[in-house]
Amino acid sequence: MSKVSNGYGGEKQQLNDGRDSRGETAKLGTDRFVNNPILTPADVKPFREDFEVIGTFNAGVAMYDGETILLSRVAERPKVTDATIVRIPFYDHEAARLAIHNFDTRQSEFDFSDPRGISSKSGKHTAYLTSLSYLRIARSRDGIHFTVDEKAFMFPENEYEAFGLEDPRITQIGDEYYITYTSVSSLGVGVGLAMTTDFKRVQRLGLIFPPENKDVVIFPEVIEGKYYALHRPSVSGLGNPEIWVASSTDLVHWGGHRHLMGIRPDSWDSVRLGAGAVPIKTEDGWLEIYHGSDEEGRYTLGAVLLDLKDPTKIIARSDRPILEPEADYEVNGFYKNVVFSCGLIAEGDRLRIYYGVADTAMAGVELDLQDVMDSLNLQRV
Amino acid sequence: MSKVSNGYGGEKQQLNDGRDSRGETAKLGTDRFVNNPILTPADVKPFREDFEVIGTFNAGVAMYDGETILLSRVAERPKVTDATIVRIPFYDHEAARLAIHNFDTRQSEFDFSDPRGISSKSGKHTAYLTSLSYLRIARSRDGIHFTVDEKAFMFPENEYEAFGLEDPRITQIGDEYYITYTSVSSLGVGVGLAMTTDFKRVQRLGLIFPPENKDVVIFPEVIEGKYYALHRPSVSGLGNPEIWVASSTDLVHWGGHRHLMGIRPDSWDSVRLGAGAVPIKTEDGWLEIYHGSDEEGRYTLGAVLLDLKDPTKIIARSDRPILEPEADYEVNGFYKNVVFSCGLIAEGDRLRIYYGVADTAMAGVELDLQDVMDSLNLQRV
Repeated sequence: MSKVSNGYGGEKQQLNDGRDSRGETAKLGTDRFVNNPILTPADVKPFREDFEVIGTFNAGVAMYDGETILLSRVAERPKVTDATIVRIPFYDHEAARLAIHNFDTRQSEFDFSDPRGISSKSGKHTAYLTSLSYLRIARSRDGIHFTVDEKAFMFPENEYEAFGLEDPRITQIGDEYYITYTSVSSLGVGVGLAMTTDFKRVQRLGLIFPPENKDVVIFPEVIEGKYYALHRPSVSGLGNPEIWVASSTDLVHWGGHRHLMGIRPDSWDSVRLGAGAVPIKTEDGWLEIYHGSDEEGRYTLGAVLLDLKDPTKIIARSDRPILEPEADYEVNGFYKNVVFSCGLIAEGDRLRIYYGVADTAMAGVELDLQDVMDSLNLQRV
Repeated sequence: MSKVSNGYGGEKQQLNDGRDSRGETAKLGTDRFVNNPILTPADVKPFREDFEVIGTFNAGVAMYDGETILLSRVAERPKVTDATIVRIPFYDHEAARLAIHNFDTRQSEFDFSDPRGISSKSGKHTAYLTSLSYLRIARSRDGIHFTVDEKAFMFPENEYEAFGLEDPRITQIGDEYYITYTSVSSLGVGVGLAMTTDFKRVQRLGLIFPPENKDVVIFPEVIEGKYYALHRPSVSGLGNPEIWVASSTDLVHWGGHRHLMGIRPDSWDSVRLGAGAVPIKTEDGWLEIYHGSDEEGRYTLGAVLLDLKDPTKIIARSDRPILEPEADYEVNGFYKNVVFSCGLIAEGDRLRIYYGVADTAMAGVELDLQDVMDSLNLQRV
C-alpha cells in the first residue's frame, strides 16, 4: 500500500495487527498520532483562577497562514470547594458578565445524577449545564504539536450563549472563514454563525438555525448557485436525531430543508447521527465524515458520499465505521467511548482527521482517502 | 360603547353578564357568533367512503374575491369496524397513494392510551397519528355561513406530509396568498410553505422551518427591507415551547432567529405558546393574537403588540386572555378546553376572529380592536 509523503509518517501508532488495511480483516482508523491525545485539559490555562478546565475537545479545523488551527471547545467549571454545593457557571446577559448559580444538593428540587447537567426532578427537562464551554484556538506548524492561545477566541457574549459555545466547524470560502457553533442557553440549543479572516477578530452573524439543532457544517463552495449545509434537528416527538440538508443564498438565511439520512437499526449508528467534518470535494462526490451513536451511547465515525451537483442526494454510505473508540483516551474520560470529529485537513490522498475523545481531549488520525472511499462500497460504472 | 357597522351585529351570542366590556369586571371575547360552531365534522363529506371526518378546525383565513375563505384542517380516520384493531392512515410516498397500517391492540408493543397518536411502550416517542389531516376550503359570502369545497385543497403528496398537513395560516402579500402549515411525518414535524393566487391551484415551496417547529405566521408586508415570521420551536432539552421571530429576504430562506416571548409561571400561558393569527398592522404596532396553554392543557388566546419597524421588539403583552374556552363547543370535544386561532379578518375597528374549538370544529367571535388594545395596558406617552 503506497503512502503519500505528508510529513506525518514518522509519528503514527498502530492499534491493529499491522496487516494491509485493505485486506479482509483490515480496520480503518489505525494511523492514530503517536502523541495522542494531542491536546488535553492540562495544556489549557483556565480563563479564571477559581475555574478548572475539564475538557478541550470537538475542535473545528482550518489551515491559516501556514498553520493548522484547532478551534477547540474548552469546558470549564468553578473549582469544587464544597462537595455539597454544585456551582453552575453562566453568562449573565443583563449584567454582561459571568455569574455562578450555587445549588445545595441536600436541599434541592434538582437531579444531579448526570455529570453534564442538572435537571428538574419533576420532569426530565435539562435546566443547567455543569460546565461552561467557549472556543479557544490552538495553533501548530506541523499539525501535530499545538500551542494554546492565551485567551478565548469566542466567549459567551449574548443571551443565546449564556450556557456556552460548543462544537465549532470552520468552512473556508475564499479568504473568509465561517464558523458554525452550537449556541446553548436556557432559551434552547441553536446554531450560531460567525466569520473571521485572521483568527484574531471575529464577527457574529446571528443564529442561523433555531432550537433544537446542532452539528451544522457548511459546504465550502457554492453548488449550482446555492450554499448548502448539513444540520441535525433534535426532535422529541415524531422523528429521530438525524442529518438534514438545507440551502442558502447568503449563508445567513436557510431554507429548502430536506431529510438526508437516518439511523440504522442494529448498527453503530442506530440512535443518533450528526454531521462531523466540513465536507471535502472528491472526484466521486462530496465526502462527509459523520458521527453516529448506538444504544450504549458509543460515538463512532462513518462516511457518506453526496452528489457533487446536488448534495441532497446520497451516492453511497459506509456500512462499517471508519473510526471507533478503542484507544484508552477514547474509551475513558468525562463521557466514555466517544470519537467525534468537527474537522479535517485533506492533503492529496491523505486525510488528517482531528477528533474529540471522550468529551475530554483532542486526538488525530491519518487515513488514506482511498481507504475511506473503499469503505463506501462505491459501485463504479 | 360604540360599535362599528359590519353586517354581523345581528348574530352574536353573549356569554357574559352584559356589562360594558371595558368595565372592571368585563371579559373580552363575548361576541361569539350565534351560529357557533360555524363548521363541524358533519358539514364535511369524507374524502373516501370508508373514512370518517373527526375534525374540521384550526383554519387559516383570507379574503378572496369577496368571500371569506376558511382553509380548514380536516382530520379523518378509517371507520372503526373492529374495536381491537387501530387503523392508522398515512400517505405512502413511494407508492404515491394513501395507505393504512393495521395495529392489533391485543398484540402490540405500542401504547394506545392517547386518542391523538400511538407511541412505543418503551419510550414515550410518538410513532403514528390516529388521524390524517389535510387542508380543505370553506367559503362564505357573509363570513358566518360557510360551504365546504367538494375536494381537498392540499392533500399529503410528499414524504414530509405523510402523516398530514395541519394548522395553516394565510398571509396575503399583494395578489399572492402564502400558506404556512405544519408538515407531519415520521421524519418529524416541520413547517411547509405554499402559494396560491386563486384558491384553486397551489404551489408548494418546500419546508421553510425544519423539525421540530410549528405555528408559523408570516407578516403581511416587508418591514425595513425584510420579511418577518413568528415561529415556535418545540424543544426537548433546554428551553420551552415559546415564540421566536425570524427574518427572510425571499420568504423561502429564514435566519436571524431571535427569541421573542416566553411562558409565564402561574398564568394561563404557563406551559406553551404559539403564534396564532397573522399579525395585523395598527397605529401602535403589529398586533398578534397568540395561544397559550397551562398545566391542565387548556388553550387560551392572548394578545401581544410588536414594534412596527422592528417586530423582534415587544411593546406590550396582555396579562389576561382575550378569549378562553367557555362555551360548550369549546370545552367539550376531541381535545377538551381549546380555543386556537389561525386567522382573523380586520374590518375597521372590529376583529372577526375565527378559531378552532376542542380540535373538533370552527367558531367565530367578534372583538373591538380597542378592547384588545386596552387589554395590553399600553402606556401612551
